[in-house]
Amino acid sequence: MQIPAIAPIYDAELAARLDRRIDDKTKPQGSLGVLERLARQIGLIQRSERPVTARPAIVVCAGDHGVTAEGVSAYPQSVTWQMVENFLAGGAAINVFAQQNACALHIVDTGVNHDFGVRAGLVDRKVAPGTRNFCEQAAMSSAQCERALQAGMQFVDELDCDVLGFGEMGIGNTTAAAALMAALTGIAARDCVGAGTGLDEQGVARKREVVERALRLHADARDPLAILAAFGGFEIAFIAGAMLRGAQLRKVLLVDGFIVTSALLVASALQPAVQDYCVFSHCSDEAGHRRMLDHLKARPLMQLDLRLGEGTGSALALPLLRAAVNFLERMATFSSASVSGKHD
Amino acid sequence: MQIPAIAPIYDAELAARLDRRIDDKTKPQGSLGVLERLARQIGLIQRSERPVTARPAIVVCAGDHGVTAEGVSAYPQSVTWQMVENFLAGGAAINVFAQQNACALHIVDTGVNHDFGVRAGLVDRKVAPGTRNFCEQAAMSSAQCERALQAGMQFVDELDCDVLGFGEMGIGNTTAAAALMAALTGIAARDCVGAGTGLDEQGVARKREVVERALRLHADARDPLAILAAFGGFEIAFIAGAMLRGAQLRKVLLVDGFIVTSALLVASALQPAVQDYCVFSHCSDEAGHRRMLDHLKARPLMQLDLRLGEGTGSALALPLLRAAVNFLERMATFSSASVSGKHD
Repeated sequence: MQIPAIAPIYDAELAARLDRRIDDKTKPQGSLGVLERLARQIGLIQRSERPVTARPAIVVCAGDHGVTAEGVSAYPQSVTWQMVENFLAGGAAINVFAQQNACALHIVDTGVNHDFGVRAGLVDRKVAPGTRNFCEQAAMSSAQCERALQAGMQFVDELDCDVLGFGEMGIGNTTAAAALMAALTGIAARDCVGAGTGLDEQGVARKREVVERALRLHADARDPLAILAAFGGFEIAFIAGAMLRGAQLRKVLLVDGFIVTSALLVASALQPAVQDYCVFSHCSDEAGHRRMLDHLKARPLMQLDLRLGEGTGSALALPLLRAAVNFLERMATFSSASVSGKHD
Repeated sequence: MQIPAIAPIYDAELAARLDRRIDDKTKPQGSLGVLERLARQIGLIQRSERPVTARPAIVVCAGDHGVTAEGVSAYPQSVTWQMVENFLAGGAAINVFAQQNACALHIVDTGVNHDFGVRAGLVDRKVAPGTRNFCEQAAMSSAQCERALQAGMQFVDELDCDVLGFGEMGIGNTTAAAALMAALTGIAARDCVGAGTGLDEQGVARKREVVERALRLHADARDPLAILAAFGGFEIAFIAGAMLRGAQLRKVLLVDGFIVTSALLVASALQPAVQDYCVFSHCSDEAGHRRMLDHLKARPLMQLDLRLGEGTGSALALPLLRAAVNFLERMATFSSASVSGKHD
């Protein structure tokens, strides 16, 4: 399949112009810290001295996982579709945070084990009613994997947004993400597996054993697409595809927690330049997320001990992106405000 | 002078009701991390199961410092009044962030070395046109110190708000804050002094020497009010008074960076319960701030490498406070959304 070509964002001439604009504002140089780096990055992504974050969107992708048969989650699989209903009714955390921060929200069924029928507000991109148990066989066929990736790319083609965030819902998907992480990074399974939605110690031990068993079963899977097919959720593949196309279309990609970052591991293995487009919204409380971010040399904007998924961290980070473009657009300069500079 | 009485916020019965409300929401228990702790704290402060953050206000206090005569800042003293003009014209970072986050902004002259005349939008609480050089004598007389504290208390009496944040502007005030920190906490001056608005290594060394000299000169100052008068800052005293009254009136106090936290050190030395009312918005890039927060056993919401002051960190933290009350108010419960709970 065709992987989107992605251009690195760096442009020395534009970077210099952005730096000049940032340094002219009435503040000590560098004193807005992370926001200054963010303003520069968004400017480079949008190829503009005057970047904007006027049309943010978060795409929440839901999918089920055959590996739940191994008893890896604290919740039953039915919670996946029940939470999709909750998203549609506006009662989940992501609804509250997206609304608060004026962010468009899209709910996509990429492969939930439930028949929703045709529903207003639900985007149907179901590849299959859940993946297969990756302790027995590959989670998806390579055709299914490709369909999910393509669906993610196409969805972004139709989306009007400048900032593109991702969320997910899928009972069992921290297990899939941990297996992907181990296979793609070489980090030991014990350092990839965490408590997910709230496993006790025994549950975490079982989950670790499940991941280790699956890694042995799929030891032949070496390239990113084969690894994705072996362990991946449809929602993870969809998000990876959407990230690749989003970067190609020069959108700011807002990366959420453990599962969304596992999709980035896939996307980045296919096209490393995708990372230039990523803003890492937070470091979650799921054990492996910090290690994933370290592996990507990523610095997250916030650390709020979240472990909810749904894109909640991304929705919460939006005001910081807005602050970055707003200071650049609206603050006075030393000369316009007649403020003295530093001592000679 | 009369220090406001402040009640600790803890109430076992209300805390249990808040926890029940938080845990009923459609999310794994504890999965909203810091936001859950924030919702509980704001609920306890407001003595309500349904806390609100509908009327936030940030009070930016400006004052000049005699210690600038010792060459402790990268910028000339005139920048204090020039930045006040910038606040009034709407061109500073705090204007941009307060507007973005729908936060009322109050600009107070507590002691700027400049005659502004009567100005719309500027609250005149000038105690004197700047403090004295604390390397030669106490920064303020005890009468001046008391006037600044009282002015802060009275200002809050007249303010309609539920969340009360603080910012400051005053060339030289990181030197005052570092001296206050050393005197109030016993932490060595070298660990309290940082680069402020951007001193080089030599400048930091001189600033450290200035603080050490002043600490020796005022070694007799032992109680919090005497220490405040010795090293002062009218803006710092005003903020300390406002914090004490704010806590007494059960407002959520939003603590900003190094200087505002130094005011809290004073307030907390006078009335330790004031800390129950504090939300620490961020850890700044000023070297001593992390140590100050550690001393207070405080965990900040964000770390964005800010070192600008003005209350910018507090304005940027407001969306997180809103998110905390919003999830509590608006999210569905497991039963209302018919979502299954954990496996037995």
